[in-house]
Amino acid sequence: MSVALLIRIIPFIGSGISLILAVIFATLVSKKSRGSKRMQEISNAIFAGSRAYLNQQAKMMLIFFAVLVALLGVMVKFGYLYFASIPAFATGMGFSILIGYIGMWISTTTNARVTHAAQKKGLGEAMNIAITAASASGLLLAAVVLFYTAFWFNMLFWWYGRHAVDLADNLLRVVNVSVTFTIGASFAAFFMRTGGGIFTKAADMGADYVGKVESGLKEDDYRNPATIADNVGDNVGDVGGMKADSLESWLGAIVAAQFLGFLAFRNTPGMTNSVLLPMLISTAGAIASIIAIFVIKLIIRRYKREATVSLLTTTTLSGLLITVGAIIIMSYFIIRYTMGAEYNYLFYSSTGGILIGLFTLLYTDSRYRPTRNIRESAKSGPATYVVSGLAYGMESSILPALVVIGAMVFSFYISGGLTDFKMGLYGIAISAVGMLAAAPFVVTIDVYGPISDNAGGIAEMAELPPEVRKTTDKLDAVGNTTAAIGKGILIGSAAVTALALGQAYFSQIELLNVNIVLDFMRDPRVLAGLFIGVLMPFFFASLLINAVGSAANKVVQEARKQIKGILSGKEKGDPKAFITIVTKSAQKGILIPGISIFVIPTLVGIFLGPGGVIALIIGTLLSGFAQAIFMSNAGGAMDNAKKKIEEEGKSGTPEHAASVVGDTVGDPLKDTAGPSMNILIKLISVVAIQTAVLIVDLSGKLIHF
Amino acid sequence: MSVALLIRIIPFIGSGISLILAVIFATLVSKKSRGSKRMQEISNAIFAGSRAYLNQQAKMMLIFFAVLVALLGVMVKFGYLYFASIPAFATGMGFSILIGYIGMWISTTTNARVTHAAQKKGLGEAMNIAITAASASGLLLAAVVLFYTAFWFNMLFWWYGRHAVDLADNLLRVVNVSVTFTIGASFAAFFMRTGGGIFTKAADMGADYVGKVESGLKEDDYRNPATIADNVGDNVGDVGGMKADSLESWLGAIVAAQFLGFLAFRNTPGMTNSVLLPMLISTAGAIASIIAIFVIKLIIRRYKREATVSLLTTTTLSGLLITVGAIIIMSYFIIRYTMGAEYNYLFYSSTGGILIGLFTLLYTDSRYRPTRNIRESAKSGPATYVVSGLAYGMESSILPALVVIGAMVFSFYISGGLTDFKMGLYGIAISAVGMLAAAPFVVTIDVYGPISDNAGGIAEMAELPPEVRKTTDKLDAVGNTTAAIGKGILIGSAAVTALALGQAYFSQIELLNVNIVLDFMRDPRVLAGLFIGVLMPFFFASLLINAVGSAANKVVQEARKQIKGILSGKEKGDPKAFITIVTKSAQKGILIPGISIFVIPTLVGIFLGPGGVIALIIGTLLSGFAQAIFMSNAGGAMDNAKKKIEEEGKSGTPEHAASVVGDTVGDPLKDTAGPSMNILIKLISVVAIQTAVLIVDLSGKLIHF
Repeated sequence: MSVALLIRIIPFIGSGISLILAVIFATLVSKKSRGSKRMQEISNAIFAGSRAYLNQQAKMMLIFFAVLVALLGVMVKFGYLYFASIPAFATGMGFSILIGYIGMWISTTTNARVTHAAQKKGLGEAMNIAITAASASGLLLAAVVLFYTAFWFNMLFWWYGRHAVDLADNLLRVVNVSVTFTIGASFAAFFMRTGGGIFTKAADMGADYVGKVESGLKEDDYRNPATIADNVGDNVGDVGGMKADSLESWLGAIVAAQFLGFLAFRNTPGMTNSVLLPMLISTAGAIASIIAIFVIKLIIRRYKREATVSLLTTTTLSGLLITVGAIIIMSYFIIRYTMGAEYNYLFYSSTGGILIGLFTLLYTDSRYRPTRNIRESAKSGPATYVVSGLAYGMESSILPALVVIGAMVFSFYISGGLTDFKMGLYGIAISAVGMLAAAPFVVTIDVYGPISDNAGGIAEMAELPPEVRKTTDKLDAVGNTTAAIGKGILIGSAAVTALALGQAYFSQIELLNVNIVLDFMRDPRVLAGLFIGVLMPFFFASLLINAVGSAANKVVQEARKQIKGILSGKEKGDPKAFITIVTKSAQKGILIPGISIFVIPTLVGIFLGPGGVIALIIGTLLSGFAQAIFMSNAGGAMDNAKKKIEEEGKSGTPEHAASVVGDTVGDPLKDTAGPSMNILIKLISVVAIQTAVLIVDLSGKLIHF
Repeated sequence: MSVALLIRIIPFIGSGISLILAVIFATLVSKKSRGSKRMQEISNAIFAGSRAYLNQQAKMMLIFFAVLVALLGVMVKFGYLYFASIPAFATGMGFSILIGYIGMWISTTTNARVTHAAQKKGLGEAMNIAITAASASGLLLAAVVLFYTAFWFNMLFWWYGRHAVDLADNLLRVVNVSVTFTIGASFAAFFMRTGGGIFTKAADMGADYVGKVESGLKEDDYRNPATIADNVGDNVGDVGGMKADSLESWLGAIVAAQFLGFLAFRNTPGMTNSVLLPMLISTAGAIASIIAIFVIKLIIRRYKREATVSLLTTTTLSGLLITVGAIIIMSYFIIRYTMGAEYNYLFYSSTGGILIGLFTLLYTDSRYRPTRNIRESAKSGPATYVVSGLAYGMESSILPALVVIGAMVFSFYISGGLTDFKMGLYGIAISAVGMLAAAPFVVTIDVYGPISDNAGGIAEMAELPPEVRKTTDKLDAVGNTTAAIGKGILIGSAAVTALALGQAYFSQIELLNVNIVLDFMRDPRVLAGLFIGVLMPFFFASLLINAVGSAANKVVQEARKQIKGILSGKEKGDPKAFITIVTKSAQKGILIPGISIFVIPTLVGIFLGPGGVIALIIGTLLSGFAQAIFMSNAGGAMDNAKKKIEEEGKSGTPEHAASVVGDTVGDPLKDTAGPSMNILIKLISVVAIQTAVLIVDLSGKLIHF
């Protein structure tokens, strides 16, 4: 077998190993006991609610899907798109839904097992089960990403290879279709992440306010009928939505890097390898994650009996470090071997991304000044708490942005000025792939969160002894820090990916021999495009946050009614009513954003021309990056400051009440609007790329330029 | 006297009339009684506090002033600046401080007179006194702006005219210095607006939280020792800061339009008139404001006895409409007469700006959906209230931005594409001047607010009968709607002015024969500049909001201590302690922003070149515009939703408590960070323009381009 062929096959091998391990892990977990009948019933109710939501969501997506495929069909018919875009779109979307669905299935069938283990066998075994199940989710993601990208690359390479003039021509078509085929995954992720985000936060805010604040019930109290919806929300948003999001991010980073690699190395010997490199680094990420998972499983097994929160926290954190470290080491050799030693700088720029993850920690961990100060401000009431949270959230976007800016300017200066800017951007795109290659591990820790959360909910609803809840609370606390860093990595990579996609769009237009002047002081259309782009995150955030707010309001009203009946002993609660309410709200809330995301880039293209579209992408990217980090960290810091107050044993004090308000304000920021920004940024870019040729034709007819 | 000379003299005439009327109004008010000894003491304490703050602030500004003049001197010495910039800078700063000081003096000597009138003569006479005093403030602004711009124009025109090659050469120098001379006013405004904003909101938040929430005292209760500081804050922020802000905005709009007019009409017969036009429209604004002031004074006098809130609200609102209407009509004839009928479109674009003011109303008035929905969300607690306020605030930035974008694209299409973009921009700049020409009236209503607010405070602190407080509350409510529209007009004009200033900078560089490529997809330095620009508002907002938060925290702690002593009857309060605390905090809070605003554009210039600087200006402008409107309207809407709840008679309910939290969160957004954005945007632009030539030299040495 030739080396070149081996390189093309490696991702399939990585995919296979990941899949096998995922199946083994899932099977191992399925053999554990699900506890008492009551616990199983609750767990089943959560599963049923999650499934009901996802089915409803899938129906809506199907309608969009049909419309979009029809539109794509028309574009293919008139030669504006390659035919392969349609099946690529469909498979991207299908995989996204599938992975979300399986993730939810794993989580909802595991939660009761974790509760049972927490009750009977203690923290160590509970952690073991939760992390094993979560690993299955994480590795499944790796299996899908590696298979999907490698399959399409090889398929397209063979298909277009039959008629291509030369290798460059062949690769051009491959990367072109590749860029467009993330659209299916991005589209599905937008629906699942955003809809899930609305669902989970509306249920959470509503259930908490009526339950905790008004009725004085504990979190997840069995008498609060909105609790099931709250627990469903954890799965819908933090498992289903988050997995779709990760899939989209990782795929996007890979194809963006492939496109830029092709442009940077066009007609040089490194051309093919530059397109394969992102898949190889991704495979390294899967391997690194597997190593890390085994290491932490070993540690957990070793210290099962004497497990403590700090030990387990250190364990997950070191798992992340192992993953990242292994990716960095493997990347070094992969780049050296496939591209040559003179491209070592690709390696250096790819390590910088880790910084962004660490800055997230700085701004959201209660060991550092920002969260500590937010915690202090609780002493003067909820308003100063929120104000302080918002201020630090804003501040937190500065340093990560400076990393991206620094990488850009650095690569500009070392690559000798303007001539090799594409090479610098390729380095940045590779860094995004490097960051996202840690996704299998990051997702493992992320999925671990809602599993432990649910386990606690079941303990409470099944009225198990309070020690069980204490154990699951400890379990929940273990993953927080690591998850925060992981979140930072995902956000940082989104900006970089979008930058690369913007460049891909630009090159797409250049390949059409259309000369674009992007001078925003000489062409008001470019300035207008930038302005609209900067506004996009404001527009989307306002829609999504409002959707959460109004849904939460409905939950509150329904819960008030039901709790009154329940506490007076006259009525039984109807948990399904809440699931219906938030499902409908989530659907309604996503409709306008879902349509706008396709309509706005198209309209901008028609009226402001391709220059306006590039400006739109860049404007959205810059403003969305800052907003995403602001929202995510403001919410995260307010959440952790609240937890710090709880750790100090001050639950129930006015300080704690202030922090609960702050946490609730932060919820839709960090879990609904913030994460949607990443997808928004990229979806705008890919929609623009899909319609590039069409736009050039249309806007050319409207006004000559 | 020739017509050309007459045109140059008209602004002086407008200035003279405004000044005379201002003096007459102030004298009229000074003859009214200041009430009982106690009332006079309180009023004096407020005046003393305001003066103490302003003196302290002036000392700090003096240090900055000395450093800046030294730097400017060095730049003049090495030929990077015209010498005239130094006296222009000094006078701009001096006028700004002077106008802020006199404004505060008028307000603080009027407040007790209004209280007295409210007690003895009822709503009509109280309104009459308040509005007469406020008019003196508004007209003083007009007198200063018209004199300042006309004086410098004529001086420079004569001075450079002695050696100029031709008229174009003469005007070029004039407009060049003109653009740079707003820096003094902008600089002073930044300190006064931002410092004042920190002062007023820290005092307000702190006093309210301890007084109202913790101790159950009423607003302005005499037993709350932080109340004096709160009342001082109204004058320091909403009078001093706001007047400096208006001066800066108006001057900025005029000189930006002058610069663009010169560029658009260079070497055509319209050249001189295009530079004079902004001053003529400003004079029209002063006249229009005077007409409106007399009309509303007449109405108040006519209905003095049967005055009601709705009647007076309608009166102030119609005053604004009269001002705006008169400006539009006069502008039509001025443009037709000075520029010719073919430039009517300048007139049309100048009317569009009013829309932005109306959108503010749509998003902050409780008659419309957004504020009504925010009010509803109070039913499910403070968190949903805040979340809803933030969401609508974000949404509210969309429509105003679309107006600016629409005007830009419109002028692009009607002026026949790219060739005449400068002409289109001139139209937009003229529209900003037209909007700001309403400033004397807008400032009148704005200053009226804190006077009535203070009057209420004095009534409370002097323990007057509750009816007096009720009357002053009515008085306070009268100006709200009109002030909200006025605020919208100021924000809208800031964006447009900044756009014009950015273009001015760009032309400044072009005049140096440096070719700038602003292509952000080919030059990472431009992209980096844009990115830094987008982050600037996040950076500044976080610093300012945090400054307010931490100062409020200190106020709370001091107030807790003092109130405990006062309520137990053991100690007397020490109101001065609060003034010292917030003055220090305001000083500290403004230090880093004050330095950054000079350092960042310079550093960006050195490392990213002039292209990076233009990108910085544009990035700051786009993101700052959206943030300014978001913050201002989020705060305004939450404030008004709270007032609506109070109007419904629900003070003291949990709903009302929720809205108080929301209002407090909104305070630093709408009164500290939001208004600072406008100045930030422009100050960045003028600093960049000042250092343009220097930067081109420096960055040219660093890297050749």
